[in-house]
Amino acid sequence: MTDTDRTPITRAFCAEADAQDPLAGLRDEFLLPEGLVYLDGNSLGARPKGALERAAAVIEREWGHDLIASWNTHDWFELPKRIGAKIGRLIGGERGGCVVSDTTSINLFKVLAAALKIQDQAAPERRVIVSERENFPTDLYMVEGLAKLLDRGYELRLVDEDLPLSEALREDVAVLLLTHVNYRTGALWDMAAETRRAHEAGALVLWDLCHSVGAVPVRVSEADADFAIGCTYKYLNGGPGSPAFVWVHERHQAAAEQPLSGWWGHASPFDMAVAFEPAPGIDRFLTGTQPIVSLAMTEVGVDLALSVDDRALREKSLALTTLFMRLVDQRLAHHDLTLITPEDPERRGSHVSYRHPEGYAVMQALIANGVVGDYREPEVLRFGITPLYVGFLDVWDAVETLRWVLDEEVWRAPEFQTRGAVT
Amino acid sequence: MTDTDRTPITRAFCAEADAQDPLAGLRDEFLLPEGLVYLDGNSLGARPKGALERAAAVIEREWGHDLIASWNTHDWFELPKRIGAKIGRLIGGERGGCVVSDTTSINLFKVLAAALKIQDQAAPERRVIVSERENFPTDLYMVEGLAKLLDRGYELRLVDEDLPLSEALREDVAVLLLTHVNYRTGALWDMAAETRRAHEAGALVLWDLCHSVGAVPVRVSEADADFAIGCTYKYLNGGPGSPAFVWVHERHQAAAEQPLSGWWGHASPFDMAVAFEPAPGIDRFLTGTQPIVSLAMTEVGVDLALSVDDRALREKSLALTTLFMRLVDQRLAHHDLTLITPEDPERRGSHVSYRHPEGYAVMQALIANGVVGDYREPEVLRFGITPLYVGFLDVWDAVETLRWVLDEEVWRAPEFQTRGAVT
Repeated sequence: MTDTDRTPITRAFCAEADAQDPLAGLRDEFLLPEGLVYLDGNSLGARPKGALERAAAVIEREWGHDLIASWNTHDWFELPKRIGAKIGRLIGGERGGCVVSDTTSINLFKVLAAALKIQDQAAPERRVIVSERENFPTDLYMVEGLAKLLDRGYELRLVDEDLPLSEALREDVAVLLLTHVNYRTGALWDMAAETRRAHEAGALVLWDLCHSVGAVPVRVSEADADFAIGCTYKYLNGGPGSPAFVWVHERHQAAAEQPLSGWWGHASPFDMAVAFEPAPGIDRFLTGTQPIVSLAMTEVGVDLALSVDDRALREKSLALTTLFMRLVDQRLAHHDLTLITPEDPERRGSHVSYRHPEGYAVMQALIANGVVGDYREPEVLRFGITPLYVGFLDVWDAVETLRWVLDEEVWRAPEFQTRGAVT
Repeated sequence: MTDTDRTPITRAFCAEADAQDPLAGLRDEFLLPEGLVYLDGNSLGARPKGALERAAAVIEREWGHDLIASWNTHDWFELPKRIGAKIGRLIGGERGGCVVSDTTSINLFKVLAAALKIQDQAAPERRVIVSERENFPTDLYMVEGLAKLLDRGYELRLVDEDLPLSEALREDVAVLLLTHVNYRTGALWDMAAETRRAHEAGALVLWDLCHSVGAVPVRVSEADADFAIGCTYKYLNGGPGSPAFVWVHERHQAAAEQPLSGWWGHASPFDMAVAFEPAPGIDRFLTGTQPIVSLAMTEVGVDLALSVDDRALREKSLALTTLFMRLVDQRLAHHDLTLITPEDPERRGSHVSYRHPEGYAVMQALIANGVVGDYREPEVLRFGITPLYVGFLDVWDAVETLRWVLDEEVWRAPEFQTRGAVT
């Protein structure tokens, strides 16, 4: 810590930071309950003001009035591609194509199958998928499901404290699957460096952007990534369970074969042909009919993200996560909080996580007192910082509430001890 | 045709039939544009009155106000199971489980993979999936995608005029995949008889209910079906692209392994375990995070369908489709319309289709004049009869408009000749 870090931070300092914040006005684009400090946008983004209006237009005018004609007149057919193209811009994907469809898990299956097929033709001896033990579990489950289905000796090799990535990338590796920002710790991979290293080892690279897109600048083309997937309901504020995206580098599009080959991915879906013929380009990664209301709302959140320079957003995100860490250092040092998020800004995403032995109860007490973060096994308190709508005073209030919960042992109340389902 | 069929049907007769219709009041549960005869509910169901209210509640109160807590407090976790259980009742699925999730195409992939695996363990020599050449193409595409991915000699055998189903069901058949009601002709399979025949041949049976559920009584348990899938946006009026369902007979649930094994299908999703462990029962057919707004709206349509005795609904549906056919016989016999829907009510679903050499232009002219059916290659005019909201006068008006379009050759206008995307 430098001397500057030791200067006590005051509430007035945070208020001044908000006043100076060039992005502060974006908060007005969201409807958040009065008085709530919402630090869980990394799990479910907040509601943009335009979301209800968009949904109502789809339900009343498009579905209700124009009915089936809306597939053409309201461009329902184009939605996955139109919103996908916007996300493609957000993630710096100019050297590839992007569509919005289905879920992150399903999209992972599509691109992993495509990647394994490409490798199988070029280097059939490569039968290993490398990922992290600490990756978001559903990513690992989908790999497991595909490997089991294929039943051709594919195996998952997990990087952990005993096996660094550099050692895991042997010549038997077909695909490296990494999540850009770790869901628990908030640790950020250097996408360009890891992609380069994997390519040098002969592996294709698939990035899961769920915890970075919308909060951390992503440059998939610059990093030369092969495939990317991600969700739209976290930092992109698309609404609960809004459809996910999939991006594929142009060099793979002609060869990419994905097995979930439904009508929407057909070259001529309305010819009603018996045989499947994949659409050219990224469109072949579409499968079945999409949930139009949820899909249309996604665009509202994506448009908001596109309206901001992502470097300015990153600057604010880092200022906020740094502020959080410093306040905890300065004001909560006497408590048993262990920071598990990298202090190095180059290695940090947009949330801050601490372990605390009573993490579950502490988070319940925080939530009951208007500070919404979340809890993740084991013992982890997560505080998500969505720079679009979180301010410096929010961070101050969150840390002060945490201090009170710990100082006064508010978390000991029985109602905070009961375990329920956790999101 | 009997003598009765020759008695000229009048507009007054249709008005009287509406007046006597015990289900006529259900029309009030839907918001349809004034003056429109909507006969495309077999492609996109109409908007129930409660849909916008439900969506607004999810967007404003659940997402907007309660945010992440809604996963528990508003039962988002339970939605796929709760709505699935209701659909399970609708399809007579008491001997199995049902969940709502993803798309019909994706769900087909899940259950077909599970079925092939079950067969592979019991009878590995069975490597054929039998379906119909006239099946809805995306079903065939999904089979093709899975067979290609597996690359273990699976092949698709298509029943057509040269190959009847009885001959196709040889001892090499693993799975029979049929769509209960054909999307183009409206022909209805006898589910119990075909399932029995396929079981006798050693095949498992997977039924696609997209064009029957909500309009034709379905009894999957009684028919002893193995698997069923279907959509909710046609006769169930769930909204554009509302999520699909999947039903699995209880005898397969313990053994069923589906490869799209995402977090929502895990036995303990919040333990964040590295390895996948399938949830017991039908829940293992869930995969990733679902589009909650579209999903929640689905329930409004499903509840409406559940509020009606499906035998009464069937009676009305048959009365309407029969009326359509008789009116065409009586009033349009001088035109080149070829009925392709079975006249036998036992073999008829809930839509009526005719071929006409100028089918495309004729349908465009009908739509422009307030009668919305749809067009399907080749030359097919489809008129969907959703008995929940279509009445006898609607059918009269539709046939009269069709007569006018043909008598006056309205379809010759250039604006009806231009081909656009077709839904």
